[in-house]
Amino acid sequence: MRAEILAVGSELLTPQRSDTNALYLTERLRELGVEVGARVTVADDPGLLESAFRAALGRADIVIATGGLGPTADDLTREAAAAATGRKLVRDAGILERLEQRFASFGRVMAPNNAQQADLIEGALEIENPNGSAPGQLLEADGRLLVLLPGPPREMKPLFASGVAPRLRERTGAVPLHTLVLRIAALSESDVDARLAPVYREFEGVATTILSQPGQIELHLHARGASEAEALATLERSADALEAALPGRIYSRDGRDLPAVVGDLLVERGARLATAESCTAGLLAARLTDFAGASRFLERGFVTYSNRSKTELLGVPAEIIEAEGAVSGPVARAMAEGARRAAGVEVGVGITGVAGPDGGTPEKPVGLVFVALSGAAGDTLRRRQFPGGRERVRFQATQTALEMLRRGLLGISE
Amino acid sequence: MRAEILAVGSELLTPQRSDTNALYLTERLRELGVEVGARVTVADDPGLLESAFRAALGRADIVIATGGLGPTADDLTREAAAAATGRKLVRDAGILERLEQRFASFGRVMAPNNAQQADLIEGALEIENPNGSAPGQLLEADGRLLVLLPGPPREMKPLFASGVAPRLRERTGAVPLHTLVLRIAALSESDVDARLAPVYREFEGVATTILSQPGQIELHLHARGASEAEALATLERSADALEAALPGRIYSRDGRDLPAVVGDLLVERGARLATAESCTAGLLAARLTDFAGASRFLERGFVTYSNRSKTELLGVPAEIIEAEGAVSGPVARAMAEGARRAAGVEVGVGITGVAGPDGGTPEKPVGLVFVALSGAAGDTLRRRQFPGGRERVRFQATQTALEMLRRGLLGISE
Repeated sequence: MRAEILAVGSELLTPQRSDTNALYLTERLRELGVEVGARVTVADDPGLLESAFRAALGRADIVIATGGLGPTADDLTREAAAAATGRKLVRDAGILERLEQRFASFGRVMAPNNAQQADLIEGALEIENPNGSAPGQLLEADGRLLVLLPGPPREMKPLFASGVAPRLRERTGAVPLHTLVLRIAALSESDVDARLAPVYREFEGVATTILSQPGQIELHLHARGASEAEALATLERSADALEAALPGRIYSRDGRDLPAVVGDLLVERGARLATAESCTAGLLAARLTDFAGASRFLERGFVTYSNRSKTELLGVPAEIIEAEGAVSGPVARAMAEGARRAAGVEVGVGITGVAGPDGGTPEKPVGLVFVALSGAAGDTLRRRQFPGGRERVRFQATQTALEMLRRGLLGISE
Repeated sequence: MRAEILAVGSELLTPQRSDTNALYLTERLRELGVEVGARVTVADDPGLLESAFRAALGRADIVIATGGLGPTADDLTREAAAAATGRKLVRDAGILERLEQRFASFGRVMAPNNAQQADLIEGALEIENPNGSAPGQLLEADGRLLVLLPGPPREMKPLFASGVAPRLRERTGAVPLHTLVLRIAALSESDVDARLAPVYREFEGVATTILSQPGQIELHLHARGASEAEALATLERSADALEAALPGRIYSRDGRDLPAVVGDLLVERGARLATAESCTAGLLAARLTDFAGASRFLERGFVTYSNRSKTELLGVPAEIIEAEGAVSGPVARAMAEGARRAAGVEVGVGITGVAGPDGGTPEKPVGLVFVALSGAAGDTLRRRQFPGGRERVRFQATQTALEMLRRGLLGISE
C-alpha cells in the first residue's frame, strides 16, 4: 500500500518555508503500515495542480493533498482534484448552511467567495472541520483513496486523525513498519556496500537504505511483522547477518552516535580520557561532551595549536617536532602519551594533521592526519589521507580517533 | 521559465530528514529569475522515479534532480532519467578513468560497483564534480533542460554554481536578484525586529527576510537593479540605515561568520588568544579554527572539564571552586586569566556553565553560563541564562564569548 502526499501552495515553494504537514503525515502513515512513495509540493496553478493529481493517482493507492481549500481565488485544490478524477464539483447545501452559521456566530455576514468551500467532488464524503471553515474530503475512486485536507496544521492534524486514519487502518489491517538503524564509522560507502549488498539483497521482507556522510554510514532496515516482536526479531536477524559480513564494524544498533558509544565504553571500563588536538582544535572533546554525563570519562583536553604548547603542555620534545614536523606519527604518539601522563588518566588520544585548505606540501598534503592512542585502549597509530575540505577532514579525523578508541577498548584488532 | 526540482531518495521520505538541497536550489533559481512550479521527493523505486521524471518533463522547462547518482544498487536516477527521455546510458571512458585515478590517489582499488557513476545519458554533458565521485549531467532535450546533480550538498552546490547557473543565466537573460546578508549575534529575534522593523518596512525595492537561530540573527536584504553596482548600492544604503538603528551590533555584511570576524580582529590587533572551556569543552576553539589561518591568533586552548584540571592547568584556586562552585563568575574570571598567563598571550577567555540536561540546581539552573575575558580585549564578565537544550546552551555560550571578544577588541561598550 503506497501513498503520495501533495502539498498545495506557492508559498511552500519559497526558500524560507518548509512543509511540516508532510513530515507529520509521513510519520502517521508509516505507523499505519503505509509507505510514502513520493511527496510533491505544487504551486497554485490550475494546470500544474491537475497534472500533479493525475500523476499521483496514476502511481499511488492513497493520495493525500493538503492546502488550497480556502475561500480565495488561488485556492484551486478542489477544482484540480475534480478535473483529475473526471468528476464534477457539487455544492453541498448542509456544508453551506454550516458555513453561514459559522460566520453568523462571529457576528459577520459571509462573503460570497466563501461558498466555494461547500463544493464537494461528486461522490466524496465530507470530513467535518471543527477548527476552520474548509472541510476535508474523502473519495474512493477506481480503487484509489483520494483525500483533501486543509493546510493549517491545527486543522489538518485533527481531520487526519478523526476522518482518515480510522479508514486507513481498516484498509491496511495496519501492519506497522519497524526500523532498525545500524551505524558504521570510518569506512567508505562503496567499501561498505561492496561487503553488505550481497547480504541485504537476499533479505526477504526487509528493505535496506544506505545513508552516507564522510566518515559515517547508516544502514536503515525496515520490516513489517504480524506483531512488533516479530518485526523486531526479523530486523535483529538481518542485522546479525550484516554484522557477520562486516565483523566488528557496526558500532551501534540502538540509535547511539559514535561519541556516546565510546563514552559508555570508557565508563564501563573505568577508563578516563584526556585528549590532545592540533588540527581538530577541540572538535573531538566537543563531540565527546555533546551528551550529558561526559564528566564521568573526560578528565581534560588540550588544544595544542602552536608547537610551543605541544612542548609545554604535553612534553612533546622540540627536537621531534623539528626533525619530523608537527604533522607526523612521532608527534601524534607523543601528544597522546603526554596528554595521558599530564592528566594522570588511563587513556590518551592525540591528533595532528593538515586540515587545509592551505599548509599542504608534496610530502604532507592537505588531508593528511595522524591519530595516536596511548594507554588502556592500546598504543596505536594511524596515518590517514582524507579527501574533501577543511570541515570534512577535521570531522573524519575525529571519527577515526573515536573508532580507534572503540576498537581499542573492545580489544578488536584491525 | 518554470523549473521543477526532484529530490531522489527513500531516506528523504522519512520523518527525520528534510531536503535542504531544494531550499538552496529554490533560492538560487529565484535569483536567476526562474520560478519553481513544483518540488517532488521520490523514493528509490525505478517505476516511481521514471514516472516522476516524465511528469516533470511534461510540465516544466527546467528539471533539476538531486541524489541517486552514487555507486550503490539503489542509486537509480541515471536509469530513470534515461528511460523517461527515451535515451540510452553510455559509459564514458574519460569519467571512468578519472574515477579510477581518484581511488588510486587514496591508495585504493576501485570496487566494480563504482563504474556506473561513469554512465551518461546519451547526449548529456558531464558537469565535473571536484568534491565527489559522481559527476553531474546536463541534457537539452525537446526544448527542456534536464539536470542531474549529486545529493550531498557540498557536492551539489558547487556543481550548480559552476555548471548550471551560467547556462540558466544565458537562457533567461534575467535581471538577477542581489542579496546582502547582515549578521547579529547574541540578541533575540524579537529585540532585533522591534528595533529594525520600523526601518526596513520603509524600504522601497528592497525585500527583507529575518532568519533566526539561537544566538544568531540574519537579515537577508534582496534587491534588483539595472546593474549589479546599482543593486549593491541600494543594499548598502539599506544596511547603513539598519546599522544606525542598532549601532555596533551588526557584526558582518560580507558573509563572514562570527568566528572569522573575531579571528581577523585578533590578527589585526596583533593579539593572540588562549581559551579555557568547561561546559563548551572545546567548541569555542573548534569554531575559531573552522577556517584556515587560525594559527595566527589561537595559541592554545584548555578543555578543563574536571575541577582538578582547572586548578592544575589554569591555577584556579581550589578554595574559590569550593566556595563559589565551578559554575561561578569568580571561576570564569580565574579561568580566563589563567589561560592567558599560562599561554603567555594577550587575551584569555573562560567559559563555565551548566549545559544540562542534568546538573541544574535552584541557584544554578540548567542554561546558566558565565563568560569572562582577561587582557587586551578588556577584563569583563557576563552572566547569561540560556533557554533550550544542551546543544543550544553550548552554542549560545560560544556566541556570547565571541561577541564579547569582538566588542572588546573594537572598544565598543555595552
